[in-house]
Amino acid sequence: MADKRKRRRVEHHDSDSDADTAHLTPKPLPFQKRLKSDSGILTSLKQFADSIRDPPASSSTTKKKPLTLADVSPSLSATCREVTDLSLSSVQSTIETLFLFLTKSILSGNGFSFTVPSRSSSNHIYIPELDRIVLKDKSSLRPFSSVSSVRKATITARILSLIHQLCIKSIHVTKRDLFYTDVKLFQDQTQSDAVLDDVSCLLGCTRSSLNVVASEKGIVVGRVIFSDNGDMIDCTKMGVGGKAIPPNIDRVGDLQSDALFILLVEKDAAFMRLAEDRFYNRFPCIIITAKGQPDVATRLFLRKLKSELKLPVLALVDSDPYGLKILSVYGCGSKNMSYDSANLTTPDIKWLGIRPSDLDKYKIPEQCRLPMSEQDIKTGKDLLEEDFVKKNHGWVQELELMVKTKQKAEIQALSSFGFQYLSEVYLPLKLQQQDWL
Amino acid sequence: MADKRKRRRVEHHDSDSDADTAHLTPKPLPFQKRLKSDSGILTSLKQFADSIRDPPASSSTTKKKPLTLADVSPSLSATCREVTDLSLSSVQSTIETLFLFLTKSILSGNGFSFTVPSRSSSNHIYIPELDRIVLKDKSSLRPFSSVSSVRKATITARILSLIHQLCIKSIHVTKRDLFYTDVKLFQDQTQSDAVLDDVSCLLGCTRSSLNVVASEKGIVVGRVIFSDNGDMIDCTKMGVGGKAIPPNIDRVGDLQSDALFILLVEKDAAFMRLAEDRFYNRFPCIIITAKGQPDVATRLFLRKLKSELKLPVLALVDSDPYGLKILSVYGCGSKNMSYDSANLTTPDIKWLGIRPSDLDKYKIPEQCRLPMSEQDIKTGKDLLEEDFVKKNHGWVQELELMVKTKQKAEIQALSSFGFQYLSEVYLPLKLQQQDWL
Repeated sequence: MADKRKRRRVEHHDSDSDADTAHLTPKPLPFQKRLKSDSGILTSLKQFADSIRDPPASSSTTKKKPLTLADVSPSLSATCREVTDLSLSSVQSTIETLFLFLTKSILSGNGFSFTVPSRSSSNHIYIPELDRIVLKDKSSLRPFSSVSSVRKATITARILSLIHQLCIKSIHVTKRDLFYTDVKLFQDQTQSDAVLDDVSCLLGCTRSSLNVVASEKGIVVGRVIFSDNGDMIDCTKMGVGGKAIPPNIDRVGDLQSDALFILLVEKDAAFMRLAEDRFYNRFPCIIITAKGQPDVATRLFLRKLKSELKLPVLALVDSDPYGLKILSVYGCGSKNMSYDSANLTTPDIKWLGIRPSDLDKYKIPEQCRLPMSEQDIKTGKDLLEEDFVKKNHGWVQELELMVKTKQKAEIQALSSFGFQYLSEVYLPLKLQQQDWL
Repeated sequence: MADKRKRRRVEHHDSDSDADTAHLTPKPLPFQKRLKSDSGILTSLKQFADSIRDPPASSSTTKKKPLTLADVSPSLSATCREVTDLSLSSVQSTIETLFLFLTKSILSGNGFSFTVPSRSSSNHIYIPELDRIVLKDKSSLRPFSSVSSVRKATITARILSLIHQLCIKSIHVTKRDLFYTDVKLFQDQTQSDAVLDDVSCLLGCTRSSLNVVASEKGIVVGRVIFSDNGDMIDCTKMGVGGKAIPPNIDRVGDLQSDALFILLVEKDAAFMRLAEDRFYNRFPCIIITAKGQPDVATRLFLRKLKSELKLPVLALVDSDPYGLKILSVYGCGSKNMSYDSANLTTPDIKWLGIRPSDLDKYKIPEQCRLPMSEQDIKTGKDLLEEDFVKKNHGWVQELELMVKTKQKAEIQALSSFGFQYLSEVYLPLKLQQQDWL
């Protein structure tokens, strides 16, 4: 029965299909006639994907790839703090070493104190060469013997002991679980959450190395096979629902793919459209969405896809300041977790659409555009001051256009030309024209 | 690598494991010693599952199964309105018949008018025999010729025409997509959403028959295999992340399962714990969660599982009024979609935990219990007046206890005994004692 209902792909110059949607809008599907054959588009996409995988020596992408803080400047690596993925056994032994050190300090009559890196906003810096936000090296003492810090020092010790247990048992828990192990001490979850981030910085490892995971929101379909906790998952066989992105990235491995690009989609409605139309079978790609604001699990998953498969990442977001902000969180990280930016961010994401210039270019009807609120305009102007926007001239122009026209539009605005306009015309045309920034 | 990290299951009387968690709480894991062998628990679970599948002739479950409005009372079926699943072609022909009728009315000089069932709260009734809320038969005229209803009549005609297109193309869209096809007419999404529900009632079919889907939130793992849009999905091989529940239930089929029960979990943190511990391999079951408030896709999926596999459904929710409310939405439906209650609800869900009486029974530490707010207590008292609570004496007692003690607790409160207390002790003991209501 499922087979019978399989979508008949609308042919590009099928006059029937134009007639079908003719009562949706007075005109036939705009721009559909400009589409070349799929094979032509695929050939040029393949060239593009190859150039990402094996960049010519002179290209700037080559230089960007292996850059670390130390490459940018030796002094930077001395003054900035970054964390790395550590194995469970390394986390365990680091904690044991730390407690041994603290015990010695107590036995020698000096009490004990944690040296905790500062995560305040004044301790952040954007490194253009790395294209991400990192943490500077300011840190503060958290002595047990001081009335003002005794609680926080106790919480820190407790969190470290809980993490140590997770290492021994080799299990994952959520931040909420962690909080509930000692409600009396932590009082509310923001306190245990904050100390958890402190502990990451303190141990110099990523939060996922601590086996504390955030709840998952993301889903994936398309041309990729991977293992999740030992089970092999073929994402071309995940129906319309897709595969939920695993919360614990360290159990994801064995990636195989014949995709030419990764399509990062802001919203699940667009994701569903592409999954139902099996867009990835027409243009080999991996489609992922975090259903709005990116969560840590989806960011880690995207990073892993990109770094292991070396595929271009094309982003499809709403044409509003929040769409761009979402793009920036994937690309450069959030301030809240800047100490972990090297492990959470995916460099070089291309802004495919919906871009402010697309509204006129694709003749999005006036009534599907929304006026920007005062707050929207302010957010847009603030973004224009951000380093990660400024370094991309194309993005600046688009954002300036958005703020000037005071118009925004959602991905769904394309539905005004017919429900399948996104998968049948808009995206194929974007790919054909390599129209991304 | 993933293999190496596979969880070593903690043995029940392993003194090491007690020692491991000893520093979590001063006492060893409470009640662990009361656990019988897994095989003993499995035998009694199997008997219970069989009794649900083939109930003895005298049991009340037999009578409940095939009940329809007409069974309860012939007059009820005349005065209440329910919708059924219709095939795409039936929806298409129903719309065509309706428009033919309207055209004739126009040609005969009478203009046209829709007869729309009322969905206002005064038009709702709870039928104890069916254990769900249904819609009474009040309806109102929506004439095109009246100034007060011309807009709504136009919107109704437009939505019907869009649904007709979906039938022809055999594709699914979201409510948001629908809204964006004609922003000028619909003005805001609440208007197109409301008319969509009207159209369901009008055509006498479920919303999923209209191929308009809500965004998916739910995930599933465990002992079930099903097809999603033609792809076979084995939920024992979905890692920790699980399989995203498909938004379009009509593309789900070919269910196979050797599970003994369905475990309905309120929160994804608990889901993750059970998935990582592969709880379903120790006690064969299907685990699903909607991550909070149940969405339509998860409710449809649960209903399909229950009705095709005939398995008992055990619910694990927070011990607060909202936990019970979530249970009631799965069980008896929400007022908002009462016209569709027969297709959205899953009868006879058992309340496994966390129940108010569990707090003392399992000695949940005081600091992991939370005081109920005034609003919580009011919600609890309101629930005591609801028919679906009143008909289950055990639920009334539990709820009265909650309101009396003014204490609530989340599922995570069990983490205070160790992160794996839920999967290693609490749930096995509940299953052993068949402790559900």
